[in-house]
Amino acid sequence: MVQYVGTTNLARLVRHVGLEAFLRGLAGYIEDDFRRWPQFEKIPRLASHSASGVIELMPTSDGALYAFKYVNGHPCNTAAGLQTVTAFGVLSDVATGYPLLLSEMTLLTALRTAATSALVARSLARRGSRVMAMIGLGAQSEFQAMAFRALTDVRRLQVHDTDPAAARKFMRNMARAGMEVTLMPTSTGAVMGADIITTITADKQQATVLSDNMVGPGVHINAVGGDCPGKTELQPGILSRGRVFVELPEQTRVEGEIQQMPDDFPVTEIWRVLAGHEPGRVSDHDITIFDSVGFATEDFSALRYVRDGVAGTDFCADIDLLTAPRDPRDLFGLLDLHEPEAGNSI
Amino acid sequence: MVQYVGTTNLARLVRHVGLEAFLRGLAGYIEDDFRRWPQFEKIPRLASHSASGVIELMPTSDGALYAFKYVNGHPCNTAAGLQTVTAFGVLSDVATGYPLLLSEMTLLTALRTAATSALVARSLARRGSRVMAMIGLGAQSEFQAMAFRALTDVRRLQVHDTDPAAARKFMRNMARAGMEVTLMPTSTGAVMGADIITTITADKQQATVLSDNMVGPGVHINAVGGDCPGKTELQPGILSRGRVFVELPEQTRVEGEIQQMPDDFPVTEIWRVLAGHEPGRVSDHDITIFDSVGFATEDFSALRYVRDGVAGTDFCADIDLLTAPRDPRDLFGLLDLHEPEAGNSI
Repeated sequence: MVQYVGTTNLARLVRHVGLEAFLRGLAGYIEDDFRRWPQFEKIPRLASHSASGVIELMPTSDGALYAFKYVNGHPCNTAAGLQTVTAFGVLSDVATGYPLLLSEMTLLTALRTAATSALVARSLARRGSRVMAMIGLGAQSEFQAMAFRALTDVRRLQVHDTDPAAARKFMRNMARAGMEVTLMPTSTGAVMGADIITTITADKQQATVLSDNMVGPGVHINAVGGDCPGKTELQPGILSRGRVFVELPEQTRVEGEIQQMPDDFPVTEIWRVLAGHEPGRVSDHDITIFDSVGFATEDFSALRYVRDGVAGTDFCADIDLLTAPRDPRDLFGLLDLHEPEAGNSI
Repeated sequence: MVQYVGTTNLARLVRHVGLEAFLRGLAGYIEDDFRRWPQFEKIPRLASHSASGVIELMPTSDGALYAFKYVNGHPCNTAAGLQTVTAFGVLSDVATGYPLLLSEMTLLTALRTAATSALVARSLARRGSRVMAMIGLGAQSEFQAMAFRALTDVRRLQVHDTDPAAARKFMRNMARAGMEVTLMPTSTGAVMGADIITTITADKQQATVLSDNMVGPGVHINAVGGDCPGKTELQPGILSRGRVFVELPEQTRVEGEIQQMPDDFPVTEIWRVLAGHEPGRVSDHDITIFDSVGFATEDFSALRYVRDGVAGTDFCADIDLLTAPRDPRDLFGLLDLHEPEAGNSI
């Protein structure tokens, strides 16, 4: 049997564990897997583009477990009351090829993206960073805020969105989060005095969310929104002044902020920092930039975390995605053709 | 909600429709999709190889629907009482990126492979072909036999397997199939007088299941077993004497029987025959060879067929693989963090 975790059970699991504890646990799994990065098979994601969006398959494997995520990106969905991004994923046993776990990943992707951002900021932001600016208050924004609360010293948020409805939703959701949140009328105001700047806008276009003059020395930039060709948030000047950290360089050069830079623009692979092979921030004056686009290992870690989290609980259900014939070569016998079809239930 | 069809419900659906009617209906969907082949996005399958086997993702899209199949191939699984090949698939709406149907595809792949074989034989075998040899009586064999019964005039089988247990299983499963089945002690005996030869052995190696001298003029060969690099069943001489028909040439040149031939070995794309653009068999003396490796469009057709088949029935279940927030940007609200965690069920 394959274990199934739908959105209802994933939300139950998060409530049961507690959101901040869940994010810390998830970040631990992501960190463990980044630290053994060379063990992973890095397969480019497989994208199917259409006029309305993209559907992607993102697989990876560490030789013992295999995972893939299905994820779509359809910017116009919101207008129809649907989500821009939905996702699900599967974790499998490499030795047998059998799937073990099928999980929703719409919520889980938001959780793992936020956990990754906060985990990386812990290595790159100035020690004692307490004030974070957030520009863009869409679906991902509260997850980011809560991950920084769970994993870092950030306790004050200065936030901005051009859409008042998005801002209202954010303020409502953060009302009981234990953080000081100030809604700012401009992004320039939001970044003023911030130790960390998180950009997380959703427009699928080359947009300047942060211009060069908005970024002072010592700031850490968590650039989450720019994650596909043609979609960026930072003025190139910022990238030139800072040190840029990435997940998989080949992918980030196509999808991240550095798509604006020459092919040989220097970057540091974040796994090397987390594994202790390279320094993160080297001075309080550095501008550090995490050019985050999301990579399959983070989904692998998230599925691994969910699998361990639901083990022995009722936060999952068995589904008959696999057959279990008595004789593995007798697939035909599973059709039970000579059984009367009466009253079978699922 | 996403519709879910597990192995139990897929078997129920097949029994409800009737196996032969199911295979004919499925072949109709496969044929319809082959006829509009140029509309499909042909994406190479994405394989993750390990010492014990391979896990593949096979996506395709016609611009309105997107499908992918997850399928593994682990030859050693049988020894552990597990299946060599298991599969599942998803059908999605291209316009929104939302998954519509999740279905088991272990049974469904066997059904679609057999339906494709019989559909193609109907175009390529000599009219009035009644006798089929089958070499290899593993998991796929009964499905092949029943698809030929459902779609062609084949009524007599001459079958062989080196493993007596596999042969016994086949004879048992075919006892009430309405076909004359003769178990032969050798493959040479099995092919004697056959109009059609189906090779469907499972050894993952360059094996000579059919040698040149076993194949007389006028025969149609349905070569199903050879489907990955290093795994072939036919002596190259047979390929030189015959006309070879394939699904996607780029894929078949790597995975099919023609991996033994030069890169420019002439082949005919089977969709062109089914669409009426090229002739199939042109004389009663032709040796026609369907070098079948399986392609993603066949899975697409199968998922489409299952989706239509379960519509309005109880052969499927709704699962919460997707979220449905009131406000699509309020993903965080789905966590219901302020709800007491009590007595929720899945």
